[in-house]
Amino acid sequence: MSGATQVPVARTVLQQCVRASLMVKPAEEKSSEAEFVQIDRGMVIYVCFFKGATEEILPKMVSSLLNLRVCETSSGQMSSVLDLPGSLLVVPQATLGGRAKGKAMQYHNNIPKEQGLRLYQAFVALCQKELGPKENVGVKSGTYGNRQVLNLETNGPYTHLMEF
Amino acid sequence: MSGATQVPVARTVLQQCVRASLMVKPAEEKSSEAEFVQIDRGMVIYVCFFKGATEEILPKMVSSLLNLRVCETSSGQMSSVLDLPGSLLVVPQATLGGRAKGKAMQYHNNIPKEQGLRLYQAFVALCQKELGPKENVGVKSGTYGNRQVLNLETNGPYTHLMEF
Repeated sequence: MSGATQVPVARTVLQQCVRASLMVKPAEEKSSEAEFVQIDRGMVIYVCFFKGATEEILPKMVSSLLNLRVCETSSGQMSSVLDLPGSLLVVPQATLGGRAKGKAMQYHNNIPKEQGLRLYQAFVALCQKELGPKENVGVKSGTYGNRQVLNLETNGPYTHLMEF
Repeated sequence: MSGATQVPVARTVLQQCVRASLMVKPAEEKSSEAEFVQIDRGMVIYVCFFKGATEEILPKMVSSLLNLRVCETSSGQMSSVLDLPGSLLVVPQATLGGRAKGKAMQYHNNIPKEQGLRLYQAFVALCQKELGPKENVGVKSGTYGNRQVLNLETNGPYTHLMEF
Protein backbone atom coordinates (compact mmCIF):
# COMPACT_ATOMS: atom_id res chain seq x y z
CA MET A 1 0.00 0.00 0.00
CA SER A 2 1.09 3.58 -0.51
CA GLY A 3 3.23 5.03 2.24
CA ALA A 4 2.09 7.99 4.30
CA THR A 5 4.76 10.22 2.79
CA GLN A 6 3.58 9.77 -0.80
CA VAL A 7 1.05 12.24 -2.11
CA PRO A 8 -2.02 10.27 -3.23
CA VAL A 9 -3.28 10.57 -6.82
CA ALA A 10 -6.69 9.06 -6.14
CA ARG A 11 -9.10 9.01 -3.22
CA THR A 12 -11.91 6.51 -2.82
CA VAL A 13 -14.63 5.97 -0.25
CA LEU A 14 -16.24 2.52 -0.04
CA GLN A 15 -19.64 1.63 1.40
CA GLN A 16 -21.31 -1.74 1.33
CA CYS A 17 -24.99 -1.68 0.45
CA VAL A 18 -28.02 -3.89 0.14
CA ARG A 19 -29.39 -1.61 -2.57
CA ALA A 20 -28.17 1.57 -4.23
CA SER A 21 -29.50 3.63 -7.10
CA LEU A 22 -27.94 6.51 -9.00
CA MET A 23 -29.40 8.92 -11.52
CA VAL A 24 -27.56 8.77 -14.84
CA LYS A 25 -29.82 11.07 -16.84
CA PRO A 26 -31.89 13.92 -15.41
CA ALA A 27 -35.50 14.34 -16.42
CA GLU A 28 -35.98 16.71 -19.33
CA GLU A 29 -38.88 19.02 -18.82
CA LYS A 30 -42.10 17.24 -19.78
CA SER A 31 -40.33 15.10 -22.39
CA SER A 32 -38.71 12.31 -20.37
CA GLU A 33 -38.31 10.84 -16.92
CA ALA A 34 -34.96 10.67 -15.13
CA GLU A 35 -32.99 7.47 -15.69
CA PHE A 36 -31.40 5.52 -12.87
CA VAL A 37 -29.05 2.57 -12.55
CA GLN A 38 -29.39 0.26 -9.58
CA ILE A 39 -27.50 -2.47 -7.83
CA ASP A 40 -28.58 -4.79 -5.06
CA ARG A 41 -26.10 -6.28 -2.59
CA GLY A 42 -22.56 -5.05 -3.14
CA MET A 43 -20.37 -2.01 -2.80
CA VAL A 44 -20.52 1.67 -3.72
CA ILE A 45 -17.17 3.17 -4.74
CA TYR A 46 -16.96 6.97 -4.69
CA VAL A 47 -13.87 7.95 -6.67
CA CYS A 48 -11.89 11.15 -7.22
CA PHE A 49 -8.62 11.56 -9.12
CA PHE A 50 -6.01 14.18 -8.31
CA LYS A 51 -3.57 16.00 -10.56
CA GLY A 52 -0.82 13.63 -11.61
CA ALA A 53 -3.03 10.53 -11.76
CA THR A 54 -2.47 8.34 -14.83
CA GLU A 55 -3.84 5.03 -16.07
CA GLU A 56 -0.83 3.32 -14.49
CA ILE A 57 -2.47 3.52 -11.08
CA LEU A 58 -5.72 1.86 -12.18
CA PRO A 59 -4.84 -1.87 -12.14
CA LYS A 60 -3.49 -1.61 -8.59
CA MET A 61 -6.51 0.45 -7.47
CA VAL A 62 -9.10 -1.88 -8.92
CA SER A 63 -7.38 -5.05 -7.75
CA SER A 64 -7.00 -3.63 -4.25
CA LEU A 65 -10.54 -2.26 -3.91
CA LEU A 66 -12.30 -5.33 -5.26
CA ASN A 67 -10.27 -7.72 -3.13
CA LEU A 68 -10.46 -5.83 0.16
CA ARG A 69 -12.59 -7.51 2.80
CA VAL A 70 -14.95 -4.62 3.47
CA CYS A 71 -18.26 -6.38 2.75
CA GLU A 72 -20.18 -8.80 4.88
CA THR A 73 -21.53 -12.20 3.91
CA SER A 74 -25.03 -13.23 4.97
CA SER A 75 -23.40 -15.20 7.80
CA GLY A 76 -21.55 -12.10 9.05
CA GLN A 77 -18.06 -12.90 7.80
CA MET A 78 -16.03 -10.13 6.16
CA SER A 79 -15.58 -10.69 2.44
CA SER A 80 -14.41 -8.86 -0.64
CA VAL A 81 -17.01 -7.74 -3.16
CA LEU A 82 -15.44 -10.27 -5.59
CA ASP A 83 -15.86 -13.18 -3.18
CA LEU A 84 -19.34 -12.14 -2.04
CA PRO A 85 -19.99 -11.93 -5.04
CA GLY A 86 -21.64 -8.52 -5.09
CA SER A 87 -22.29 -5.76 -7.57
CA LEU A 88 -20.48 -2.45 -7.86
CA LEU A 89 -21.82 1.06 -8.20
CA VAL A 90 -19.04 3.45 -9.18
CA VAL A 91 -19.84 7.09 -8.39
CA PRO A 92 -17.63 9.90 -9.71
CA GLN A 93 -17.21 12.24 -6.75
CA ALA A 94 -14.96 15.21 -7.40
CA THR A 95 -15.96 16.74 -4.06
CA LEU A 96 -13.77 14.12 -2.35
CA GLY A 97 -10.78 16.16 -3.53
CA GLY A 98 -11.87 19.21 -1.57
CA ARG A 99 -9.70 21.00 0.94
CA ALA A 100 -11.15 23.54 3.35
CA LYS A 101 -10.04 27.14 3.13
CA GLY A 102 -11.98 28.88 5.84
CA LYS A 103 -15.62 27.97 5.26
CA ALA A 104 -15.18 27.25 1.56
CA MET A 105 -14.07 24.02 -0.07
CA GLN A 106 -11.48 24.30 -2.81
CA TYR A 107 -10.71 21.67 -5.41
CA HIS A 108 -7.39 22.93 -6.79
CA ASN A 109 -5.75 19.53 -6.58
CA ASN A 110 -8.41 17.75 -8.65
CA ILE A 111 -7.49 16.43 -12.07
CA PRO A 112 -8.76 18.45 -15.08
CA LYS A 113 -12.22 17.30 -16.14
CA GLU A 114 -11.36 15.64 -19.47
CA GLN A 115 -8.48 13.63 -17.98
CA GLY A 116 -10.71 12.73 -15.04
CA LEU A 117 -13.41 11.48 -17.40
CA ARG A 118 -10.94 9.24 -19.25
CA LEU A 119 -9.57 7.81 -15.99
CA TYR A 120 -13.07 7.29 -14.64
CA GLN A 121 -14.17 5.39 -17.74
CA ALA A 122 -11.02 3.26 -17.70
CA PHE A 123 -11.52 2.60 -13.98
CA VAL A 124 -15.10 1.40 -14.58
CA ALA A 125 -13.99 -0.79 -17.50
CA LEU A 126 -11.29 -2.39 -15.35
CA CYS A 127 -13.83 -3.03 -12.58
CA GLN A 128 -16.04 -4.81 -15.12
CA LYS A 129 -13.10 -6.90 -16.30
CA GLU A 130 -12.03 -7.77 -12.73
CA LEU A 131 -15.56 -8.70 -11.65
CA GLY A 132 -15.95 -10.78 -14.80
CA PRO A 133 -19.13 -12.32 -16.12
CA LYS A 134 -21.17 -13.50 -13.15
CA GLU A 135 -24.81 -14.23 -12.75
CA ASN A 136 -26.90 -11.55 -11.03
CA VAL A 137 -24.02 -9.20 -10.30
CA GLY A 138 -22.42 -6.47 -12.38
CA VAL A 139 -20.91 -3.00 -12.47
CA LYS A 140 -23.05 0.12 -12.75
CA SER A 141 -21.65 3.61 -12.97
CA GLY A 142 -22.60 7.26 -12.88
CA THR A 143 -22.38 9.83 -15.64
CA TYR A 144 -19.18 11.81 -15.12
CA GLY A 145 -19.86 15.49 -14.52
CA ASN A 146 -23.55 14.98 -13.70
CA ARG A 147 -25.22 15.54 -10.37
CA GLN A 148 -24.90 12.18 -8.58
CA VAL A 149 -28.42 11.71 -7.25
CA LEU A 150 -27.82 8.71 -5.01
CA ASN A 151 -30.06 6.60 -2.82
CA LEU A 152 -28.44 4.09 -0.55
CA GLU A 153 -29.82 1.30 1.61
CA THR A 154 -27.40 -0.44 3.93
CA ASN A 155 -27.26 -2.97 6.67
CA GLY A 156 -24.32 -0.93 7.98
CA PRO A 157 -22.22 0.89 5.35
CA TYR A 158 -18.84 0.01 6.89
CA THR A 159 -17.45 3.19 5.32
CA HIS A 160 -13.77 2.88 4.38
CA LEU A 161 -11.31 5.38 2.92
CA MET A 162 -8.63 4.18 0.50
CA GLU A 163 -6.05 6.40 -1.16
CA PHE A 164 -3.61 5.46 -3.90
CA MET B 1 -6.81 23.69 9.11
CA SER B 2 -4.43 20.95 10.17
CA GLY B 3 -1.22 20.79 8.20
CA ALA B 4 -0.41 17.81 5.99
CA THR B 5 2.53 16.82 8.19
CA GLN B 6 0.41 16.44 11.33
CA VAL B 7 -1.01 13.01 12.04
CA PRO B 8 -4.80 13.38 12.23
CA VAL B 9 -6.66 12.35 15.41
CA ALA B 10 -10.11 12.28 13.81
CA ARG B 11 -11.47 11.45 10.38
CA THR B 12 -14.90 12.50 9.14
CA VAL B 13 -16.85 11.96 5.94
CA LEU B 14 -19.68 14.38 5.14
CA GLN B 15 -22.66 13.79 2.85
CA GLN B 16 -25.58 16.10 2.32
CA CYS B 17 -28.95 14.39 2.25
CA VAL B 18 -32.62 15.05 1.67
CA ARG B 19 -33.50 12.25 4.07
CA ALA B 20 -31.49 9.82 6.17
CA SER B 21 -32.45 7.22 8.74
CA LEU B 22 -30.32 5.20 11.12
CA MET B 23 -31.18 2.25 13.34
CA VAL B 24 -30.47 3.00 16.99
CA LYS B 25 -31.90 -0.17 18.51
CA PRO B 26 -32.09 -3.56 16.79
CA ALA B 27 -35.27 -5.57 16.91
CA GLU B 28 -35.36 -8.07 19.73
CA GLU B 29 -36.73 -11.39 18.64
CA LYS B 30 -40.52 -11.23 18.66
CA SER B 31 -40.58 -8.73 21.52
CA SER B 32 -39.89 -5.39 19.82
CA GLU B 33 -39.35 -3.68 16.52
CA ALA B 34 -36.11 -1.97 15.56
CA GLU B 35 -35.93 1.74 16.41
CA PHE B 36 -34.71 4.36 13.95
CA VAL B 37 -33.88 8.05 14.06
CA GLN B 38 -34.44 10.14 10.96
CA ILE B 39 -33.53 13.53 9.58
CA ASP B 40 -34.80 15.32 6.50
CA ARG B 41 -32.68 17.87 4.65
CA GLY B 42 -29.21 18.26 6.11
CA MET B 43 -25.91 16.49 6.52
CA VAL B 44 -24.67 13.08 7.58
CA ILE B 45 -21.38 13.12 9.49
CA TYR B 46 -19.54 9.79 9.73
CA VAL B 47 -16.94 10.13 12.46
CA CYS B 48 -13.97 8.09 13.67
CA PHE B 49 -11.44 9.02 16.35
CA PHE B 50 -7.84 7.84 16.38
CA LYS B 51 -5.50 7.13 19.27
CA GLY B 52 -4.40 10.39 20.84
CA ALA B 53 -7.70 12.22 20.24
CA THR B 54 -8.94 14.25 23.20
CA GLU B 55 -11.86 16.57 23.90
CA GLU B 56 -9.61 19.50 23.01
CA ILE B 57 -10.08 18.80 19.31
CA LEU B 58 -13.89 18.82 19.45
CA PRO B 59 -14.75 22.56 19.43
CA LYS B 60 -12.58 23.13 16.35
CA MET B 61 -14.00 20.03 14.64
CA VAL B 62 -17.62 20.92 15.26
CA SER B 63 -17.21 24.58 14.36
CA SER B 64 -15.40 23.67 11.16
CA LEU B 65 -17.78 20.92 10.03
CA LEU B 66 -20.98 22.84 10.72
CA ASN B 67 -19.70 25.99 9.01
CA LEU B 68 -18.23 24.39 5.90
CA ARG B 69 -20.16 25.13 2.73
CA VAL B 70 -20.77 21.54 1.66
CA CYS B 71 -24.58 21.66 1.44
CA GLU B 72 -26.78 23.13 -1.25
CA THR B 73 -29.66 25.56 -0.85
CA SER B 74 -32.86 25.03 -2.81
CA SER B 75 -31.58 27.64 -5.27
CA GLY B 76 -28.34 25.72 -5.82
CA GLN B 77 -25.97 27.90 -3.78
CA MET B 78 -23.44 26.19 -1.54
CA SER B 79 -24.22 26.69 2.13
CA SER B 80 -23.17 25.37 5.51
CA VAL B 81 -25.57 23.10 7.37
CA LEU B 82 -25.90 25.90 9.95
CA ASP B 83 -26.93 28.47 7.37
CA LEU B 84 -29.21 26.10 5.46
CA PRO B 85 -30.43 25.46 8.21
CA GLY B 86 -30.39 21.68 8.04
CA SER B 87 -30.38 18.77 10.43
CA LEU B 88 -27.46 16.56 11.36
CA LEU B 89 -27.19 12.80 11.56
CA VAL B 90 -23.99 11.80 13.34
CA VAL B 91 -22.90 8.23 12.58
CA PRO B 92 -20.11 6.57 14.58
CA GLN B 93 -18.01 4.83 11.96
CA ALA B 94 -14.93 3.09 13.32
CA THR B 95 -14.29 1.47 9.93
CA LEU B 96 -13.10 4.88 8.68
CA GLY B 97 -9.93 4.28 10.67
CA GLY B 98 -9.07 1.17 8.69
CA ARG B 99 -5.78 0.61 6.90
CA ALA B 100 -5.34 -2.14 4.37
CA LYS B 101 -2.88 -4.92 5.06
CA GLY B 102 -3.14 -7.17 2.05
CA LYS B 103 -6.83 -7.95 1.65
CA ALA B 104 -7.67 -7.32 5.29
CA MET B 105 -8.51 -4.04 6.96
CA GLN B 106 -6.83 -3.32 10.28
CA TYR B 107 -7.95 -0.77 12.84
CA HIS B 108 -4.87 -0.54 15.06
CA ASN B 109 -4.88 3.25 15.07
CA ASN B 110 -8.46 3.58 16.31
CA ILE B 111 -9.10 4.96 19.76
CA PRO B 112 -10.08 2.42 22.47
CA LYS B 113 -13.82 1.92 22.58
CA GLU B 114 -14.62 3.58 25.91
CA GLN B 115 -12.63 6.71 25.07
CA GLY B 116 -14.24 6.73 21.63
CA LEU B 117 -17.70 6.55 23.15
CA ARG B 118 -16.99 9.52 25.43
CA LEU B 119 -15.60 11.60 22.54
CA TYR B 120 -18.53 10.62 20.33
CA GLN B 121 -21.08 11.67 22.95
CA ALA B 122 -19.26 14.96 23.56
CA PHE B 123 -19.06 15.55 19.80
CA VAL B 124 -22.83 15.05 19.42
CA ALA B 125 -23.54 17.32 22.39
CA LEU B 126 -21.36 20.07 20.89
CA CYS B 127 -23.14 19.70 17.54
CA GLN B 128 -26.45 20.19 19.34
CA LYS B 129 -25.09 23.27 21.10
CA GLU B 130 -23.66 24.72 17.86
CA LEU B 131 -26.85 24.10 15.88
CA GLY B 132 -28.89 25.62 18.71
CA PRO B 133 -32.63 25.55 19.09
CA LYS B 134 -34.17 25.91 15.65
CA GLU B 135 -37.55 25.00 14.31
CA ASN B 136 -37.75 21.80 12.26
CA VAL B 137 -34.05 20.96 12.44
CA GLY B 138 -32.01 19.07 14.99
CA VAL B 139 -29.23 16.60 15.68
CA LYS B 140 -29.78 12.86 15.59
CA SER B 141 -27.11 10.31 16.36
CA GLY B 142 -26.34 6.62 16.25
CA THR B 143 -25.73 4.24 19.13
CA TYR B 144 -21.98 3.87 19.52
CA GLY B 145 -20.80 0.31 18.99
CA ASN B 146 -24.02 -0.78 17.26
CA ARG B 147 -24.40 -1.82 13.66
CA GLN B 148 -25.12 1.44 11.80
CA VAL B 149 -28.06 0.42 9.61
CA LEU B 150 -28.28 3.51 7.42
CA ASN B 151 -30.59 4.55 4.62
CA LEU B 152 -29.70 7.65 2.69
CA GLU B 153 -31.57 9.68 0.09
CA THR B 154 -29.64 12.42 -1.65
CA ASN B 155 -29.93 14.93 -4.42
CA GLY B 156 -26.17 14.44 -4.82
CA PRO B 157 -24.22 13.56 -1.65
CA TYR B 158 -21.28 15.91 -2.34
CA THR B 159 -19.10 13.55 -0.30
CA HIS B 160 -16.28 15.37 1.51
CA LEU B 161 -13.43 14.11 3.68
CA MET B 162 -12.24 16.21 6.61
CA GLU B 163 -9.46 15.23 8.99
CA PHE B 164 -8.44 16.97 12.21
